Amino acid sequence: MTMRILGIDPGLRTTGFGVIESEGSKLHYVASGTIKTDAVDIGQLPLRLKIIFDGVREVVARYQPTCASVEIVFVNVNPQSTLLLGQARGAALTALVSLDLLVSEYTALQMKKAIVGHGAAKKEQVQEMVMRLLALPGLPGKDAADALGLAICHAHAAGSFAAIARSAPLAQRSHGQFKKGRSY
Amino acid sequence: MTMRILGIDPGLRTTGFGVIESEGSKLHYVASGTIKTDAVDIGQLPLRLKIIFDGVREVVARYQPTCASVEIVFVNVNPQSTLLLGQARGAALTALVSLDLLVSEYTALQMKKAIVGHGAAKKEQVQEMVMRLLALPGLPGKDAADALGLAICHAHAAGSFAAIARSAPLAQRSHGQFKKGRSY
Repeated sequence: MTMRILGIDPGLRTTGFGVIESEGSKLHYVASGTIKTDAVDIGQLPLRLKIIFDGVREVVARYQPTCASVEIVFVNVNPQSTLLLGQARGAALTALVSLDLLVSEYTALQMKKAIVGHGAAKKEQVQEMVMRLLALPGLPGKDAADALGLAICHAHAAGSFAAIARSAPLAQRSHGQFKKGRSY
Repeated sequence: MTMRILGIDPGLRTTGFGVIESEGSKLHYVASGTIKTDAVDIGQLPLRLKIIFDGVREVVARYQPTCASVEIVFVNVNPQSTLLLGQARGAALTALVSLDLLVSEYTALQMKKAIVGHGAAKKEQVQEMVMRLLALPGLPGKDAADALGLAICHAHAAGSFAAIARSAPLAQRSHGQFKKGRSY
């Protein structure tokens, strides 16, 4: 079964997005980029959230993903930044669910493990591995690479879930390896 | 000029809303209530945000406000709660701007000063004063009272802004008393 997955790396200034198609173990690049809110004054939070909301909806309308994979953000050193990031993530998630897309969520740690093999991987290593896994002609930008990484991470998780669902008796299916993070 | 103002007190479990009409110095109650997300499991954040988003849009569709007044939330003792509250507020704000409503923002302190006269007012005092100011037959619930308080706060601020705009020379208009909070 072909899945078209939209990965989202939320942020108030820059929200990365990446769309891939997964067919069995094969992965294909579809599109990636960033939604930037720099054009609006930093104090105009509602307008910035609108840019994120409209931008994510536009990406969904254009690339028609079947599901979404969003990074679980963590508490920042600066509590004000945490609050701002939370609101940006809220706008991105809202855009997805307002279009009835099923959303899965992964931590950066889970994504890095899935892409690079260990959670301590640096941004550059994620870019490098995403380029290889999707056979891209060049390095994707950092935010786009994270978003593509989240999409790939979901393709792997959904793939192993499908494998478990095929092989396991019904009673075990709900205890499969397809864990989603629950800490926001 | 009649303004119909929607006040929003955002929260992940309960988002309060209150709609008033202001005509000069007269205030009229239109509606109030809460949007609750309790029916959805606490771990299902995207679905909870969808309930807030859909709920706020439904209130706007039903009561047709001309502008909105939203509480500026602050950093919580628990950083995880801050992150959750941020996302809830993001969903509520997104609902408003997705319908092109102009959003003004006030801190709880500004609202309490406008309603009770001092920033240290307790919830019960806000309920009591909102009941009096809007000539309600009984005490509104706490979340609804805060939301109505935010709407009244904006009515006052917009009223004094209009008065300044009428009396001041053009060059001074941008330095009026109509300050909006800028700390999220």
